[in-house]
Amino acid sequence: MAKIIEFIPNFSEGRRQDVIDALVGEASGVPGVTLLDHSSDPSHNRSVFTMVGSPDGIEEAAFRLCKLAGERIDMTKHTGEHPRMGATDVMPFVPVKEVDINECVDLSKRVAERIWRELKIPSFLYEISASRPERANLAAVRKGQFEGMPGKLLLDEWAPDYGDRQIHPTAGITAIGARHPLVAFNVNLSTSDIKIASAIAKTIRGSSGGFKYCKALGVMLEDRNIAQVSINMVNCEGTPLYRVFEAIRAEARRWGVTIVGSEIIGLTPAKALADCAEYYLQIEGFDYKKQVLENHLL
Amino acid sequence: MAKIIEFIPNFSEGRRQDVIDALVGEASGVPGVTLLDHSSDPSHNRSVFTMVGSPDGIEEAAFRLCKLAGERIDMTKHTGEHPRMGATDVMPFVPVKEVDINECVDLSKRVAERIWRELKIPSFLYEISASRPERANLAAVRKGQFEGMPGKLLLDEWAPDYGDRQIHPTAGITAIGARHPLVAFNVNLSTSDIKIASAIAKTIRGSSGGFKYCKALGVMLEDRNIAQVSINMVNCEGTPLYRVFEAIRAEARRWGVTIVGSEIIGLTPAKALADCAEYYLQIEGFDYKKQVLENHLL
Repeated sequence: MAKIIEFIPNFSEGRRQDVIDALVGEASGVPGVTLLDHSSDPSHNRSVFTMVGSPDGIEEAAFRLCKLAGERIDMTKHTGEHPRMGATDVMPFVPVKEVDINECVDLSKRVAERIWRELKIPSFLYEISASRPERANLAAVRKGQFEGMPGKLLLDEWAPDYGDRQIHPTAGITAIGARHPLVAFNVNLSTSDIKIASAIAKTIRGSSGGFKYCKALGVMLEDRNIAQVSINMVNCEGTPLYRVFEAIRAEARRWGVTIVGSEIIGLTPAKALADCAEYYLQIEGFDYKKQVLENHLL
Repeated sequence: MAKIIEFIPNFSEGRRQDVIDALVGEASGVPGVTLLDHSSDPSHNRSVFTMVGSPDGIEEAAFRLCKLAGERIDMTKHTGEHPRMGATDVMPFVPVKEVDINECVDLSKRVAERIWRELKIPSFLYEISASRPERANLAAVRKGQFEGMPGKLLLDEWAPDYGDRQIHPTAGITAIGARHPLVAFNVNLSTSDIKIASAIAKTIRGSSGGFKYCKALGVMLEDRNIAQVSINMVNCEGTPLYRVFEAIRAEARRWGVTIVGSEIIGLTPAKALADCAEYYLQIEGFDYKKQVLENHLL
């Protein structure tokens, strides 16, 4: 059984096709690594790559991509809607198979050390790799963005985890960390009132008293004129999809609103779906690892 | 992407450990084949093996196991509760990955031809491989069992698909065929009245007007004193688990009965569970092949 890690780097380039192509070429050229998907958003001016591979392959790919992005992207000239602070903005490592989350933490630290030593790009460790609780949340780490980082790094509590107290002049600073598989799960409501979606989001997200591993906010789907609870499930083992879904259904009742549908954006681990089937079908004593055929083929 | 077929032979031996061990050894020794599971039931006097492998590997394993079972099992001396007609009683081939059901049909015919030619064991083709509709159903094919087969084979409509109109004197006759993945799915009711389980089973099974790919009967779980609808889902793509589950819930209402739980016996394809999550979570536009992470690793 081979170890597999998922790696989902975000780059601050979503417009110049030659740069995107170069990153794709680099990602595709690392032995032991498979690029599953990449998508670029011009208005965000940002690209997200999804790859899987052996721990060694992923570690090497992380370094090479960070190097190339640093050479080709100049953050002093970057504009876009999405918050960002570095050419390689964030590098999450996710355990997929036969890998412990702690192996991903160790890997993230080795990558952070190397990009400082060889590329002089500083970094913050975030999520499970975070050196302090307040650094676990990417939004808190990135607050101030590229332009605010020179000042932020001088604050007592915001020294980089790797590197000096100054950003790389053009590549900025990078967030690096291990995290659990994240599922982007959105739930659509039978209302066009975003206030209802926002109120429901508040009840389910961990930061305001809801589920520990759930982040959520209300958004409008303009094209369908319906409100949506947009959710990041950051640990589907700790907080399963069905539990959040049923909580939304229950909260929606107070507004006379129903769930009209949901969507999963991008990838999900098979187990996150199997856990839902197990709940709704009331399956007793199910052994996911043994009883799912494909688990014997991986 | 490698082709994978699942093979689940049933042998008419569940008591003599030396014979079971010999079959396990043979199954484990074929290149390209992995024995996932085997279980033996002394009261049934029967063993069920589950293996996966390449088409070539499975084809060879089927022949070798049938040969060994024919040498070690004498059906004239066999007793047991489970219906049976041959030393190797039934050999189903199931497409698992990158394999079409028709490839399994072709494989089943090659195996049937070879065991007749080299071992003089005749066979019926059943399920998807059946040469006539009335042979699709294993129970119809096996009716009369080992003791009734010499007479049955002389009937106009029951000539073997491969072989002469007489059984092998000790190995009997074998059913061979391709089938879709089968999920053994049992639903437990809040009643000890087996008549209710039987009545519900009748409403959901294809043979009495229910779902085409669903076989069901009512049974008692003596140790828990509850009635159970025992189901074989013979094609979860055609008739999904959740649809049968919700139909049982609806039928149970007329008896004032609820579902207290369910169980899946043995293996299930991951997609059968994902389809249920998709239904209950109302996921819109889900692309199973692309969006489930593990599908990129297989």
